[in-house]
Amino acid sequence: MKISELAQETGVPLATVKYYLREGLLPQGIPTSATRAEYGEQHARRLRLIRALAEVGHLSLDAVRAVLAAVDDESATLHATIGAAHAALAPDGTASRHSRASVDELLRRHGWQVARTSRNRQSLAVALDALDRVGFAVGDDTLDTYADAAAQVASSDIDSVPSDGTEDAVQHAVVGTVLMEPVLLSLRRLAHEDVSARRLSKRRVRTARRTRD
Amino acid sequence: MKISELAQETGVPLATVKYYLREGLLPQGIPTSATRAEYGEQHARRLRLIRALAEVGHLSLDAVRAVLAAVDDESATLHATIGAAHAALAPDGTASRHSRASVDELLRRHGWQVARTSRNRQSLAVALDALDRVGFAVGDDTLDTYADAAAQVASSDIDSVPSDGTEDAVQHAVVGTVLMEPVLLSLRRLAHEDVSARRLSKRRVRTARRTRD
Repeated sequence: MKISELAQETGVPLATVKYYLREGLLPQGIPTSATRAEYGEQHARRLRLIRALAEVGHLSLDAVRAVLAAVDDESATLHATIGAAHAALAPDGTASRHSRASVDELLRRHGWQVARTSRNRQSLAVALDALDRVGFAVGDDTLDTYADAAAQVASSDIDSVPSDGTEDAVQHAVVGTVLMEPVLLSLRRLAHEDVSARRLSKRRVRTARRTRD
Repeated sequence: MKISELAQETGVPLATVKYYLREGLLPQGIPTSATRAEYGEQHARRLRLIRALAEVGHLSLDAVRAVLAAVDDESATLHATIGAAHAALAPDGTASRHSRASVDELLRRHGWQVARTSRNRQSLAVALDALDRVGFAVGDDTLDTYADAAAQVASSDIDSVPSDGTEDAVQHAVVGTVLMEPVLLSLRRLAHEDVSARRLSKRRVRTARRTRD
C-alpha cells in the first residue's frame, strides 16, 4: 500500500507517519519509484505498536526506540529482552541510601529473586524518595500489601506469555509490561471509587440510625 | 527566605521556580521591595509537591494545575476532591463500544460501585482498546486477577487517609493516588523479574536432573 493508505488504515496522521520514518522508528518501505514506496502489513503492525507505546504507555520517543530495539533483537532470550526493555523504561535518577535500603529490605522480606543491578530497584527507591520529599509516609504494611498485589499480577502476566520464545513471545512480554500498566492503574482508581462510595454509604447509614435513636 | 534560598532548599533550579511562579502554579511571595519577595515554608512544600507530581507522577503542567486546584478547593468533600483529581488525571479519548461493555461487565462481576459518569471507566476502556489494536488479547481471567489486586491496594490506600477531612487528608488522598502509582508499577516489574528468574531456575534444575538420570 501507499504511505497515504498506511496512514488511513492505522488512523495515524500522515505527518506523524513521515516523522516516524525520518526518526527511524518505522522501517522504510520498498521503493517503487524515485518518490514512492510500498508499505506492507508489518509496517501497519509496527505503526500501531509505536502509537500504543507512545499514547497509552506515555513513553518518550527515545523509550519507544529502546523498546523496539529490544523486541527486534533476535539474538536475545526472552528473559534478557524483558530485562533490556525494563532498563530502557526505568527512569533515571539516583535514590537516597535510605530508600535503597527499604527496597533491599522489602525484597528480602518477600524472598524475591532480583538482580543487584536491576534498574527496577532504582525506580522503586526513586518513587519512595518522591513520597518522602512531600512528607508522605509509606509504612511496611502498605508496601507489603502492594508487593503481594504486584506478585499476583506478575504471576498472571508471565503465565500468559507464550513459552516458545518466538518473536511473538518477546513482543507479548514487552508490550504486556507497558500496555497493561494503564489497565492496572485505572482499576486501582476505579477500586478507590468503590471503596470510597461503600464507606461513605456506611457512614450515612450510621448517621441515619443515630438520628432515629 | 529569598527566592534563591527557596530554590536551594528544595533543590529546584531557580529558573524552574520562576517558571512555576509565572505559570501560577506556585503562589507569589510577599513583596519586600520592588524586586524582592519573601517566601515561606508553605512555598517550599508546594514546590516539592509540584516537582513530585511532574517528575514522578509524569503529569503535564496542566494536570499538575488541575490536581493543585482540587487540593486547594476547601469547599469540596474528600470524596468529591478525589473525584475531581481523577477527572483531571484521566486521559482524553473515546473508547470503543466493545471495550466500554467489557468495563461495565467487569464492574458488574466484581460488584463495584462506580458512578456511570466516572472518567476512570473511560480510561480503562481506552487502555483495553490500545491492547486490542496491537493484537494483545486480555481475557476475563487476567482482568479479574488485576481487579482483585487493585481492590486490595485501594482498600489499603483508603485506610491510610486521615478521616478528619482536613486539607492534609485531601492532599494525602490526591498525592497518594498519583505518587503511589510508580511504586505499584515498579513492584510489578520487580515481581516479573522474580517470577521469570524462578521459572528459569526451575527449568535449569529439571534439565540438570534429566542429565544425571
